Amino acid sequence: MQVVIFEHGAVHRTTRPLPSLNAGEVLVQVRMAGICNTDLELFKGYMNFSGIPGHEFVGRVVEAPNNPELLGKRVTAEINFGCGRCPACLKYDARHCPNRTTLGIAGKDGVFAEYASLPASAVHLVAEGVSDPEAVFTEPLAAALEPGQQVHLTADQSLLVLGDGKLGILCACALRYLSPNLILAGRHPRKLAIAAGQNVATRQGDTSQGMVDALLREFGRFDVVVEATGRPGGLACALDLVRPEGTVVLKSTTFDPAPVDMARVVVDEISLIGSRCGNFNLAGAYLRDRLVNVLPLVEATYPFEAFPEALAAASRSGAMKVLVEFPQA
Amino acid sequence: MQVVIFEHGAVHRTTRPLPSLNAGEVLVQVRMAGICNTDLELFKGYMNFSGIPGHEFVGRVVEAPNNPELLGKRVTAEINFGCGRCPACLKYDARHCPNRTTLGIAGKDGVFAEYASLPASAVHLVAEGVSDPEAVFTEPLAAALEPGQQVHLTADQSLLVLGDGKLGILCACALRYLSPNLILAGRHPRKLAIAAGQNVATRQGDTSQGMVDALLREFGRFDVVVEATGRPGGLACALDLVRPEGTVVLKSTTFDPAPVDMARVVVDEISLIGSRCGNFNLAGAYLRDRLVNVLPLVEATYPFEAFPEALAAASRSGAMKVLVEFPQA
Repeated sequence: MQVVIFEHGAVHRTTRPLPSLNAGEVLVQVRMAGICNTDLELFKGYMNFSGIPGHEFVGRVVEAPNNPELLGKRVTAEINFGCGRCPACLKYDARHCPNRTTLGIAGKDGVFAEYASLPASAVHLVAEGVSDPEAVFTEPLAAALEPGQQVHLTADQSLLVLGDGKLGILCACALRYLSPNLILAGRHPRKLAIAAGQNVATRQGDTSQGMVDALLREFGRFDVVVEATGRPGGLACALDLVRPEGTVVLKSTTFDPAPVDMARVVVDEISLIGSRCGNFNLAGAYLRDRLVNVLPLVEATYPFEAFPEALAAASRSGAMKVLVEFPQA
Repeated sequence: MQVVIFEHGAVHRTTRPLPSLNAGEVLVQVRMAGICNTDLELFKGYMNFSGIPGHEFVGRVVEAPNNPELLGKRVTAEINFGCGRCPACLKYDARHCPNRTTLGIAGKDGVFAEYASLPASAVHLVAEGVSDPEAVFTEPLAAALEPGQQVHLTADQSLLVLGDGKLGILCACALRYLSPNLILAGRHPRKLAIAAGQNVATRQGDTSQGMVDALLREFGRFDVVVEATGRPGGLACALDLVRPEGTVVLKSTTFDPAPVDMARVVVDEISLIGSRCGNFNLAGAYLRDRLVNVLPLVEATYPFEAFPEALAAASRSGAMKVLVEFPQA
């Protein structure tokens, strides 16, 4: 099969044998995959990654020795696979298993390949009315919904989503069902318009400080701020915008440890909540019921043969979601 | 009246007129006061402080024009006084009023003085069986109880208190009522013994990394870590010791912004909860019912005339609580 490899900052296509199936796994023929910011970080050397990346996808199950009910089904899948034996797996949350492998990120070949092997337990059926490009968004939409799974968001709170990248827009479009007063703030009129088209109130500002000042003048401090800027300075902005005893949900993974004014967090008794992946059932229902329209987030779709061009397009500053389409034999 | 003044890194005693009472205030004759680490920080120039410090105290109400029921009563008091008109005061928590004054810290003369004026609404009666030295601990004990007011601590969680300073010991002795498996870890056998004398399980370690490794070997990662080391590196230790999706309660106010590995907080979906002052009613009940014995935390008691010596004693490395006793006319 044809696969994409990231290695030492280079990307190339090559041929590999079909993956063999471990117990409980199914073989999926990939139909479409999305390039995520994490993929761009892996490409640049994050986690010294080398191998087949890719974790946002939709495909069809073509082999399922122990799960015949899945055969032929269109699916996506969770990306963290626990060991099934440790306290994390047995007692709380396999997504945080210390021995986990993560699809296309750590210890498990990803979906920038014609075929991928996946644990049947991680697979989620894609509803009939959900198109392939939409289904690729299941994973990021689950991540966008996660703040509402971690923090009890109520209707009388004020909620600000900071950052108009893909994740910020998805957070705003998804969390507005929990928070009627939600505001999305960002720097790019074109991106904010995507959210505004889905009934999200937006505010645009050119510089961080200018935007902070304008938001404070208009709204005062917010009960909850979802930090999704993807920038090292995003947390400092969020702390300027959250009220004492308020909550900042951290969606950005900025890989340089940034100095944080923790004395302020203590004095103002602020809660900082780290937030990563989310619930696939919930995201699937949001897509099925068309609660969030993810299609305006698609920047471009490339054939798998043109993966390097797709990667270059995804790397351009301000790029939205770039999809890769696989030939279906 | 005799008062103590901190000014430009110096401490001196001087005479001031009795404070005049604003509407709703009472006049308290101070009986005993405690020197807190915040006082030491103010002495060293924190917040460019200049004036009468002191906020841990017990005294007797000697004037109460609008609150005759308080006259003659032995009291302590909350330390944050809200404006009563802003959203913080009206909607959530006056302790976090942006216009607040804070006793002996900001905008309100403190209790290192023979008399102090205080809002009657901030005053709490001291129960009869509670001695003056015990009553001085109401404020720090309330702060020690605060993690249980912010985080739903349950009996099946593992809880680690990190740091065996005054606040760490109080946290461990108070929170063990919520957490039967609580462990207090610190560096000083003499201090850990104070908590061990109150049925707290303790672990001692010489270096941060050595202690972290030993704790992980024995207990694995904890569900909740209360960081009370008072050191800039304390949060990094706490992050090494908390499980994914666990909670770190931050009690230390280290005034140098420390670099924090926020990517780890996001990936492991950790909650960082800033924690400051607490509930005085709860602390008063803990003292009244002798649930925590605070007296072993008393290092020494000085007469008010010897305040500079008391301050020097409180400043010595490893010092516990130093009290100051006022002459009662």
